[in-house]
Amino acid sequence: MTSIQEIDTPAALIDVPRMQRNIERMQERMNTLSVRFRPHVKTAKCLPVAGAQREAGAEGITVSTLKEAEQFFEAGFSDILYAVGIVPSKLSQVLALRKRGCDLKIIVDNVETAREIGRFGKAHEDVFDVWIEIDTDGHRSGIKPEEEALLEIARVLQEAGMRMGGIMTHAGSSYDYNTPEALKAIAEQERAGAVRAAERLREAGLPCPVVSVGSTPTALSAEQLDGVTEVRAGVYVLFDLVMRNVGVCTEDDIALSVLTTVIGHQQEKGWAIVDAGWMAMSRDRGTQKQPHDFGFGQVCTEDGTLLEGYILSSANQEHGVLSHVGETDKNILERFPIGTRLRILPNHACATGAQHPEYQAILPDGTVQTWPRFYGW
Amino acid sequence: MTSIQEIDTPAALIDVPRMQRNIERMQERMNTLSVRFRPHVKTAKCLPVAGAQREAGAEGITVSTLKEAEQFFEAGFSDILYAVGIVPSKLSQVLALRKRGCDLKIIVDNVETAREIGRFGKAHEDVFDVWIEIDTDGHRSGIKPEEEALLEIARVLQEAGMRMGGIMTHAGSSYDYNTPEALKAIAEQERAGAVRAAERLREAGLPCPVVSVGSTPTALSAEQLDGVTEVRAGVYVLFDLVMRNVGVCTEDDIALSVLTTVIGHQQEKGWAIVDAGWMAMSRDRGTQKQPHDFGFGQVCTEDGTLLEGYILSSANQEHGVLSHVGETDKNILERFPIGTRLRILPNHACATGAQHPEYQAILPDGTVQTWPRFYGW
Repeated sequence: MTSIQEIDTPAALIDVPRMQRNIERMQERMNTLSVRFRPHVKTAKCLPVAGAQREAGAEGITVSTLKEAEQFFEAGFSDILYAVGIVPSKLSQVLALRKRGCDLKIIVDNVETAREIGRFGKAHEDVFDVWIEIDTDGHRSGIKPEEEALLEIARVLQEAGMRMGGIMTHAGSSYDYNTPEALKAIAEQERAGAVRAAERLREAGLPCPVVSVGSTPTALSAEQLDGVTEVRAGVYVLFDLVMRNVGVCTEDDIALSVLTTVIGHQQEKGWAIVDAGWMAMSRDRGTQKQPHDFGFGQVCTEDGTLLEGYILSSANQEHGVLSHVGETDKNILERFPIGTRLRILPNHACATGAQHPEYQAILPDGTVQTWPRFYGW
Repeated sequence: MTSIQEIDTPAALIDVPRMQRNIERMQERMNTLSVRFRPHVKTAKCLPVAGAQREAGAEGITVSTLKEAEQFFEAGFSDILYAVGIVPSKLSQVLALRKRGCDLKIIVDNVETAREIGRFGKAHEDVFDVWIEIDTDGHRSGIKPEEEALLEIARVLQEAGMRMGGIMTHAGSSYDYNTPEALKAIAEQERAGAVRAAERLREAGLPCPVVSVGSTPTALSAEQLDGVTEVRAGVYVLFDLVMRNVGVCTEDDIALSVLTTVIGHQQEKGWAIVDAGWMAMSRDRGTQKQPHDFGFGQVCTEDGTLLEGYILSSANQEHGVLSHVGETDKNILERFPIGTRLRILPNHACATGAQHPEYQAILPDGTVQTWPRFYGW
């Protein structure tokens, strides 16, 4: 398409110059901190996006499903970390990918699964590349750096002839903070915990070549990454309102938006009704508990200019309610007549993208390319 | 597949006997109330589901996007109501479907769009079948039964040679109630408002053949539907935890669930980690403000037996945290060992279904059929 005006609504737009700026900002930071960068492709699940990250210097990718691993491997990505704890029933799918030549790494955080990996690997004559998941902030999976089981897992893997590839951690709790000081502290906690786990392994004579950390807030806040070999981050590539509230981007960095059309009004309530409901925005209300609640999204003009104070205040499946925060806008009908096209910035880029079969990528010259995305498992 | 044990996780399951029971319950109710029934297919977006509804006696379907209209028309459904206020930019897509033989009806709630429909219809020599959207509970779109604009819209359409097909309303606020008395009252308010709007049109000498109302709670609560010609409802076909809290179904009626596998634990916190995160469940937290908050879903065994008190208490993209409400379960690891397969009942069937490319339908004999679903716009 030659311009944004030709896109049917609702549609997910990627502002490519903004995306490119986000990619360069992160890669430069990683270069300065002397670590490799392995982007998490679950945010966009989109080949041109991952291609731009690789072009800028990223090495390898991180995935959240084996479907992503399959799709990206078929598209030429080979160094892939599957960053969800492996379960024995998924090992045959992992094996099939590895037999095809995919350098797929898996993660584990318990002895029982480590034993199963060893048994399965031996039985099928594969040396799985296994990383141990470390819990550095108590928010989800992983074992703590000081736990005895850390060494036991590594020994079980090594004795079964598997490759102890390293350790990885994800400080997901970094999303809960919003000051530079707090973010620096959680980044340092993530780094220190990961490095400590690696040291314990090495002191016990066990190998730990990779020390992998990351989340968008910590990757953008860490002051030093001594002992870390690689960083992972996902949402930074598009950013969103949650990250704006965390303080690691501004609205002007958000590269994902949903294009929508005004389809009606409730004049006395100050509502414009738009054709982007939760099916287009997702049900994510990530800014609800943050200092600035954007409802289901921040309203912008079709060309991306922020309309301060106007948000999607509620959403049904295919209807969004656009209103002014605070005082009712009695001129809503004149301000946004039927047919007006607007962009809505999302709370959470990973969730909003997942609602769409494809992105409409707005290139620097204003022309539009359709970029498909994967979904399902 | 021959059984549920062969399904990879996460996956969306439909319990077909439950679905069939839900379909029959609603259709029998509609037959008793002497109204036609036009199911809203946005919940499942799935041909076998709509086929079962038609088989039971449904006449026509309701859709939430023109993509659904296209897909269902190609599969042999012709009488289709597009129940989102039409916007002039979408008229050419409507026209194309009608020229192919689709009996597609559109809705409008303002004079300006009615004029555009008239102009476009005349210019392209089509008599659009247009229904006026009525607002009977103030929750979203539509004009109020007593508004002057009601007659003006109908006159504009008639003067332009369009077909005034009727009026329609949707008491979406019925989701906010949870007693039979309140639901009966909102159902009567929906009925009375719709009938009043139809009467005003007829008194002014304007035609109004169809009087269409509906939402799952009101359809299941209305005591009488005098003056109504058809009812619409969507989520009743699968039901969900929000509807359980509204009081129109029990957990045993919920036909949609997400199959998941335990991948790890945080023993001292009483957590089991499963491979169904918000990508599989959706970000919908519809029960959050209801009397019984189910987190991201209610946990059941693989065969569907309810595990009282166990819910998905939080969710990341591909990780769900399963825990006991109230007292921490210190035996979580023994209760749900790694590899345990569970079903999770969702908050909102429309939102959870939308996360999946397909359903795994569990037939009465326990065998499994894959039922694809549509998505996108």
